[in-house]
Amino acid sequence: MNWKPDKSSHDPIYLQIADHFEGKMRDGEYPSGSCLPSERKLAATLDVNRSTVVTAYDHLASLGLVARVKGFGTVATDRQTFDGTAKRIPNWEQYAKSGFLHRNDPITRHIHAILGSDQSNINFAIGELSPDLFPVALMQQAHSRIEMSQYLGYEHIQGNIGLRDSIAGHLRTHRGIASSASSILVTSGAQQAIQLIIQGLLKPGDGVAIEDPSYCFSMPIFHSAGLRTYRLSVEQDGVDPEQIVSLYKRHRIKMVFLNPIYHNPTGTTMSAERRKRLLDISTKFGIAIVEDDPYSLTGFGQAPEGTLKSMDRDGSVLYVSSLSKIVSSGLRIGWIAGPHSVIQRLTDAKQQLDFGHSNIPQWIAAQLLSSGELDNHLRKLRTGLQHKLEQTISSLRTEFGDRIKFRVPSGGIHLWCELDGEWDELQLFNQAIDLGVVITPGSTLGSHRNRIRLTYSRVDDREIAPGIRKLAEAYRYALGFDR
Amino acid sequence: MNWKPDKSSHDPIYLQIADHFEGKMRDGEYPSGSCLPSERKLAATLDVNRSTVVTAYDHLASLGLVARVKGFGTVATDRQTFDGTAKRIPNWEQYAKSGFLHRNDPITRHIHAILGSDQSNINFAIGELSPDLFPVALMQQAHSRIEMSQYLGYEHIQGNIGLRDSIAGHLRTHRGIASSASSILVTSGAQQAIQLIIQGLLKPGDGVAIEDPSYCFSMPIFHSAGLRTYRLSVEQDGVDPEQIVSLYKRHRIKMVFLNPIYHNPTGTTMSAERRKRLLDISTKFGIAIVEDDPYSLTGFGQAPEGTLKSMDRDGSVLYVSSLSKIVSSGLRIGWIAGPHSVIQRLTDAKQQLDFGHSNIPQWIAAQLLSSGELDNHLRKLRTGLQHKLEQTISSLRTEFGDRIKFRVPSGGIHLWCELDGEWDELQLFNQAIDLGVVITPGSTLGSHRNRIRLTYSRVDDREIAPGIRKLAEAYRYALGFDR
Ligand SMILES: Cc1ncc(COP(=O)(O)O)c(C=O)c1O
Ligand SMILES: Cc1ncc(COP(=O)(O)O)c(C=O)c1O
Repeated sequence: MNWKPDKSSHDPIYLQIADHFEGKMRDGEYPSGSCLPSERKLAATLDVNRSTVVTAYDHLASLGLVARVKGFGTVATDRQTFDGTAKRIPNWEQYAKSGFLHRNDPITRHIHAILGSDQSNINFAIGELSPDLFPVALMQQAHSRIEMSQYLGYEHIQGNIGLRDSIAGHLRTHRGIASSASSILVTSGAQQAIQLIIQGLLKPGDGVAIEDPSYCFSMPIFHSAGLRTYRLSVEQDGVDPEQIVSLYKRHRIKMVFLNPIYHNPTGTTMSAERRKRLLDISTKFGIAIVEDDPYSLTGFGQAPEGTLKSMDRDGSVLYVSSLSKIVSSGLRIGWIAGPHSVIQRLTDAKQQLDFGHSNIPQWIAAQLLSSGELDNHLRKLRTGLQHKLEQTISSLRTEFGDRIKFRVPSGGIHLWCELDGEWDELQLFNQAIDLGVVITPGSTLGSHRNRIRLTYSRVDDREIAPGIRKLAEAYRYALGFDR
Repeated sequence: MNWKPDKSSHDPIYLQIADHFEGKMRDGEYPSGSCLPSERKLAATLDVNRSTVVTAYDHLASLGLVARVKGFGTVATDRQTFDGTAKRIPNWEQYAKSGFLHRNDPITRHIHAILGSDQSNINFAIGELSPDLFPVALMQQAHSRIEMSQYLGYEHIQGNIGLRDSIAGHLRTHRGIASSASSILVTSGAQQAIQLIIQGLLKPGDGVAIEDPSYCFSMPIFHSAGLRTYRLSVEQDGVDPEQIVSLYKRHRIKMVFLNPIYHNPTGTTMSAERRKRLLDISTKFGIAIVEDDPYSLTGFGQAPEGTLKSMDRDGSVLYVSSLSKIVSSGLRIGWIAGPHSVIQRLTDAKQQLDFGHSNIPQWIAAQLLSSGELDNHLRKLRTGLQHKLEQTISSLRTEFGDRIKFRVPSGGIHLWCELDGEWDELQLFNQAIDLGVVITPGSTLGSHRNRIRLTYSRVDDREIAPGIRKLAEAYRYALGFDR
C-alpha cells in the first residue's frame, strides 16, 4: 500500500483511514465477505498506533460497511451501497451498542424486562413494597389537597421549597440530622442522587470504595464515568474502617459509598464504634463519605437506628435517602443533604440531566412528610415488614432445612442467603423464572459465590410460602437432583 | 531532586508524585505559602509528561494541600495539618469543581438562580407558559381521577404503558407520526431525552452537528461527553442540508440535532424542500437525525406544521418532544419515539440515571393526552400566545423604533432580536436585572453578536409593556446614553 494518512491534516487520522477504505470498497477492491488487512499489519504499514486502526475499523462498522468478527478479523459486509440510489439508513444497532453509559449487566436487564411485562411472577427481586404496605389513605389525602391553580411551570431545579423545608424537618425529627432547605437537593430517588454525585463531583481516574456485596456492586455508572472502584467487604458490624485507610494509602480513593444501616443486601448495620472510627478517618485523610440510607426507618427494634450523618460534626458526609422504601418508590422522591457548594454544583448538574423533578409528586411528598400521620404509617410498615420476614424465614426453614444460611436482619427489606452445594447461579435463576419466581442472583450484588438475595417486602403474604417452595424446586434442579 | 517515580509500580505515577510532595510538606520542606516546582521543570526532572505533573498537583489541590494560582504557580496552603490531631475535612469546593459534567455557563446559572429565588422579576428568559395559559381545569380534572389504590411501586422504566399508548395516539392524530407503545420512551422532558441520546448512543470523539443559534448551543452536555460539535447556521427556511453533507465529508458527523419547527430562538421553520433533502442525505450517508419538536402544536396558522418525522419513511429520525410548552413544563413529561433497539438501549440508560419517571405525572399526562378537551386547550393556547407576541412586538416598536430587528415568527414562544449599535451584552443583561427584567443574552444561544432572545409566553399580559420599557432603558444604558 502506497497510501499514507496525512498527519499534518486537520482531519483525524482514523477518519482518513476509514475514508480510504470506504473509497476502496466503492471501487470494488473489497467485495462483500472479503477481509480487510489485520489491525496489527495495517498499523505497521501506515505507521500509526494500532488503536487508531481499531478506531477506523470501528467507525466503518458503525456505518455498517464492515463487520468485526471476533477471533477472525474485519470483513466487508453487503451493506455497501455505492450506486448513489441505494439507501444507507442510520445503523441504529451500532448506535445502541455505543454510548458513554455502559449497559446494565444482562441479568439486571432480564429482571427488569420480565417484571416490566409480566406482573404474575412472584417477585422476590425488586426492592419495593407490596400493595398492602403503601400508605394509600395518606397518599390519597395528600393528593386531594393539591390544587392545580398553583404555578405549573418549571419547579425550582433544586426542588420545591416547601418540600425541601419538609425534608429538613423530617431529617431533624426522624434521622437526627440538622440541615436546611438550602443544603438539600431533591432527586429522582437515591438512584439519581448517586448518579449526580458520580457525574458532578468525580472525574475519570478518581478512585472510590464501594461495599461488596452491595446495591452498587455491578452498577455500570461507576465504570461509565471512568472511576476506579475498590471493594470493602461487609461484615456483621459493617465495613472495617482500617480497610479504607489501606485503600487510601495505596490508591488515594477520594470517596466512599456506604449503606450503613440495614444494608442492601446483607441486612447488617455498621457498629457505633466503626462509624466513629470511620468519621475520624474521613477527616484525617480528607476522604468524602456518601451515606446512602433508604432503610433506617424500617427497623424492627424500638428506636430507629441513628444515621452516620447524625454523628458527623465536621461535614464530611453527603447524606442520600429517599421515600422509595417507606412510602412509594413510584413517586421517585429522594434527596441529598450536604454542604452548600456541593448542593449548588449538583443542582446545576440536575438542570442538565432533567431540568428538575416533576412538580406534583414534590407537592404530595411535602404534604406527606409534614403530616402527623407518617409515624403511624411507619409503625404499620415495620410490623408488616417484620411479618413478611418471619414468614419468609419459616418457609425457608421448611423447604431448605439446613442447606440454607442467612443472618436474620433487624430491619430493611432484604435477606441475603447462602445455599449449600454445587449449583449454577444462572441455572437457578432461569429455572426459578420458569416456575414463576424471580430472585436476585448474588453475583449481580457481590463477588461471593453461592448467594441469592430474597427481597421480602414486595411479595404478597399469601405468595411467600408457594414462592419459596418453587424456589426450592429450582434449587434442586440447579443441584442436578431433579433432572 | 534524586527521587524518581517507580514506573514499574502498580500505583499511578501521579499519585506517587503527589505522595512524595505530601511527605515533603509533612517534613516542613514546603511551608505554607512557598512555591512547589513549576510543572514544566518538575516534568523534566522526573522524566514524566507534563500532564502527569498537572494531575499530581491537581490531586494535592483536591486535598487542599496546595493552591493553583493562575499565572503564578502551585503554592503550599496552610491547610497542611500533619500533627495527627488536626482535621482535614473533605475539600468540598474542590469536589464541586471536579465532575464529569461540565458546569452551565455563568449566565445560564445566573438566570436560574435569580428566577428561582425572586418571582417578582418580569421573566422574558425561561421557556415556559404564564399562569393564564395552563389548562388548569383539564389538569384538575385529570388529577382528580387518579386513584392511589393503583400500584405505587416503581413504574415501568420505559414509561407507564397507558401513557405510552396515549402518546402513540397523540403522535398519530396531532403530529402525523405512526408509532406504538413499544417504540416510545417516556423522559423527564425533552431535556432528558437529549441527554439520554448523548449518553446512551454517542461516545467520546463522535462528531455531531447542532444549530447556531439554538437551545443546544452552549449546553455543556455535548462537551461533557467528549463530543466534537459543528455548527449549522439557521436561515429563514431552516438549516441548509448541503452544510450537513460538507460536515459529513470533512468530519464524519454521526448525528444532527435539529429543532425544525418554530425554532428556538429564531422562530423559523424548515422548508418542506429542505426537509426532503435532509432525509435523503440522512439515508445516503447513514447520518442519524434527532428532531427536537416541543413547538409544532403552537403555530398561529390554520393547520399545525407537519413534523420531519412524519415524512421519515426509512426510520432515520429520532423524534423528541414534550408537554412543557403546551401543557405544563413542571410535569416534566417528554418522550422519544424511535427504533426499538434505540428505545431499549435508552430505557436501560434511564434506569441508571433515575430509575424511571415519577408515576402520578405519567397517569395525569395519559388522561390529558387522551382527553377530547386537549384540542380546545390548544386553540386557546395558540390565541393566547399570538396575543402576547403581538403585544410584545407593538411595545418593541414603540420603545425601540428602528433600533431593533426581528422576524415575526408564526409559532413558538420566542422572539429573536437584533439590537443596533455598540453595546455590551453583559451590561444589558445586568442592567435589565437591576430594573427587574430578565432576558436571555444571545451569546448563550449562538455565535452572533448583538442579539437577545425575548420569550413572550411566560410574562403576564399586563407586564409586557412595562417590561419592554425597562428593557429599552437598560439598552440605552448599555449603549452609554444614560450614564
Ligand atoms: C442501598 C440502595 N440505594 C439506592 C437505591 C435506589 O432507590 P431509589 O432510587 O428508589 O431511592 C436502592 C434501591 O434498591 C438501595 O437499596
Ligand atoms: C428546542 C428545545 N428543546 C428542549 C427543551 C427542553 O424542554 P423540556 O425538557 O421542558 O421539554 C426546550 C426548552 O426550552 C427547547 O426550547
